[in-house]
Amino acid sequence: MKPVPHTLAGRAENPTQAKVLKLLRDEGPLSRVQLADRMGVSRTTMAGEINRLAELGLAEPAGPAASRGGRRSTLVDLSADLRFVGIDIGATSMSVAITDGRLAVLGERHHMAMDVRLGPEHVLGAALELTREVLAEQNIDRPAGVGIGVPGPVDFHGGIPAAPPIMPGWDGYPVRDAVARELGCPVLLDNDVNLMALGEQHSGVAKSAPSFLFVKIGTGIGCGIIVGGQLYRGVDGCAGDIGHIRVEEVGPMCACGNTGCLEAYFGGAALARDALAAVRNGRSPALAALLEEKGELTAADVAQAVSRGDGHAVQLIRDGGNRVGWVLASLVSFFNPGLIVIGGRVARLGHPLLAEVRGVVYRRSPPLATGNLPIVLSEMGDDAGVVGAAALISEAVYAAG
Amino acid sequence: MKPVPHTLAGRAENPTQAKVLKLLRDEGPLSRVQLADRMGVSRTTMAGEINRLAELGLAEPAGPAASRGGRRSTLVDLSADLRFVGIDIGATSMSVAITDGRLAVLGERHHMAMDVRLGPEHVLGAALELTREVLAEQNIDRPAGVGIGVPGPVDFHGGIPAAPPIMPGWDGYPVRDAVARELGCPVLLDNDVNLMALGEQHSGVAKSAPSFLFVKIGTGIGCGIIVGGQLYRGVDGCAGDIGHIRVEEVGPMCACGNTGCLEAYFGGAALARDALAAVRNGRSPALAALLEEKGELTAADVAQAVSRGDGHAVQLIRDGGNRVGWVLASLVSFFNPGLIVIGGRVARLGHPLLAEVRGVVYRRSPPLATGNLPIVLSEMGDDAGVVGAAALISEAVYAAG
Repeated sequence: MKPVPHTLAGRAENPTQAKVLKLLRDEGPLSRVQLADRMGVSRTTMAGEINRLAELGLAEPAGPAASRGGRRSTLVDLSADLRFVGIDIGATSMSVAITDGRLAVLGERHHMAMDVRLGPEHVLGAALELTREVLAEQNIDRPAGVGIGVPGPVDFHGGIPAAPPIMPGWDGYPVRDAVARELGCPVLLDNDVNLMALGEQHSGVAKSAPSFLFVKIGTGIGCGIIVGGQLYRGVDGCAGDIGHIRVEEVGPMCACGNTGCLEAYFGGAALARDALAAVRNGRSPALAALLEEKGELTAADVAQAVSRGDGHAVQLIRDGGNRVGWVLASLVSFFNPGLIVIGGRVARLGHPLLAEVRGVVYRRSPPLATGNLPIVLSEMGDDAGVVGAAALISEAVYAAG
Repeated sequence: MKPVPHTLAGRAENPTQAKVLKLLRDEGPLSRVQLADRMGVSRTTMAGEINRLAELGLAEPAGPAASRGGRRSTLVDLSADLRFVGIDIGATSMSVAITDGRLAVLGERHHMAMDVRLGPEHVLGAALELTREVLAEQNIDRPAGVGIGVPGPVDFHGGIPAAPPIMPGWDGYPVRDAVARELGCPVLLDNDVNLMALGEQHSGVAKSAPSFLFVKIGTGIGCGIIVGGQLYRGVDGCAGDIGHIRVEEVGPMCACGNTGCLEAYFGGAALARDALAAVRNGRSPALAALLEEKGELTAADVAQAVSRGDGHAVQLIRDGGNRVGWVLASLVSFFNPGLIVIGGRVARLGHPLLAEVRGVVYRRSPPLATGNLPIVLSEMGDDAGVVGAAALISEAVYAAG
């Protein structure tokens, strides 16, 4: 059995190196002189640290700096060969993307349909195959690290799924170590919604927000929580599980065994159920046409019907948005975030949904908490998860060991 | 006009000094040799830092250390003269207490009835008078710092109340600076529930919990949030405002202008209203007797009726506990805390309340989040607020400048 590459080879060795890498990531190439000045260390010390970062394959010279009079300094940049992999395993599909050291996606994000219920061996086998394909396409021998998201709670320190309700067979499976062994590089595992929040923080609308909520509305409904720039995972790693907050005392049965959960009203399955009921009651010509075309209805078809101007489909979205709004109004009262970003498949239903959510939160939460609270749609689409996965592992590589 | 003592005179000057003070606070007297070893600095360096802390009046020699062979080291302790003041201004009363450097309350907590609606000049005048009395009683010339809590949202960095709903005349009043000017020492201002959470963290049941919620049920209902050992105040300083979370779609009018808020069901005024209704409907002999005795009914009388075995009074508490439970179940799903502590006046109703809250949260929140989640009553009573206020300012004094 191959050993698990636990130590992050090619990782910052001290706080100075870590700070240099984060400056280069956030501000682009800087001269050796600028770096020394910014960090308050001597130029000799800085030269030593930069040489070491070059040996680790993390930074490299990037040509002469603009002259400031006197001898020219040399620009330093993140290594052009630095590559991170983000793997986003969802309930019904997975995505893989490669990023550079600044988390820009290189080439195309690769996507395939895959049912997570097939279990870890099967799903991870497919994920590794897809990953190796993408690495080969880009001539990458060994990435600096891999981040993986899965659609359920994760024991982050153990690198294993923790009692995930929609992932039979995955509970306690050593996902992080298995993938690290196969790919021979450092790997970190987290919940998919947490990673989408990290993606928004690094590359999306949440870039300057130190405390915000990312709400994913898709097959499931969940929330990523960023506090003071850091992901908050909760004591057992299951913070943000807002899909099972009760929205009504008496309500539909949820897959979790309770009734009246938000997800039982507005998760992917609930929306498909309501779409089918609308057809049966003769209320939605657009959904009826879609059912006839395809033989089944999913949440995506409701979006389709909305775009065809179907009134009942719009009403379904408004009802769901209203319930999401009530849950978020409570969370705003409790948490007083600086921003709420709404993403995920159902969130692509766009502005009717957003208008409803905003209406409830702005009317219902304390005025002090909503005075400066933007509620916006994600603009990253399916990239949020893979970029967030790459961000997670890059943070570990760029942090001091 | 006297100057505001903005700089914390007698405050740790560097991280080494700060760490020494926190070690002494948390572990008691330590020898110079132990301190040097624990911090990984030379004995000469440590001797210098300790001398400086003695000059600042923060630490002092405390006799010879137990012999470890060779020359005896000297014990160092927090200065025996170090005194912090905690002032807890509530809606209808205020408390003042003096603590030593380890936040143990010295002598009695002083308490007086006072309506916060009388405005800042009047209320702060009374608070200063009470504080000076307590300082004089204990022969204290100048405390190392003062913490103040008020029953409303606070702009922590500005040291001013921010649009507090039940404190007319206080919005934007420079409470921190006014008190600092009068007492000639550093002062910090925060929301009273935040301070109760800090009090529980330093001296109560939450001592070893890095992430927990403190829920106050009194005149108002609020929540203090500790994340990773730090108080989380929210982006606008109003995090934890859970009294205005909606618990039912149609419900009683709340003072905030909305309907169905938790506080409109179970705040102090709501409980008094329901107690009166119970008497009018002839449902509660115990409450009827109390009304006849006193001419009015408050939340405290419901507790009294419960202790007399009045069935309807118990039912009022159960109904309220049930609603608190539903709100907390949502927050547990969202936040996955490690502990919930329930305090405040109404919380003294004790076990019928606790049983109801636990029943709802344990049944309703995700199993992963409740598996190791204690829900307990505070054991600090009215001390939580004043100890928390002292803890707030002690943290600032003990932190590196």
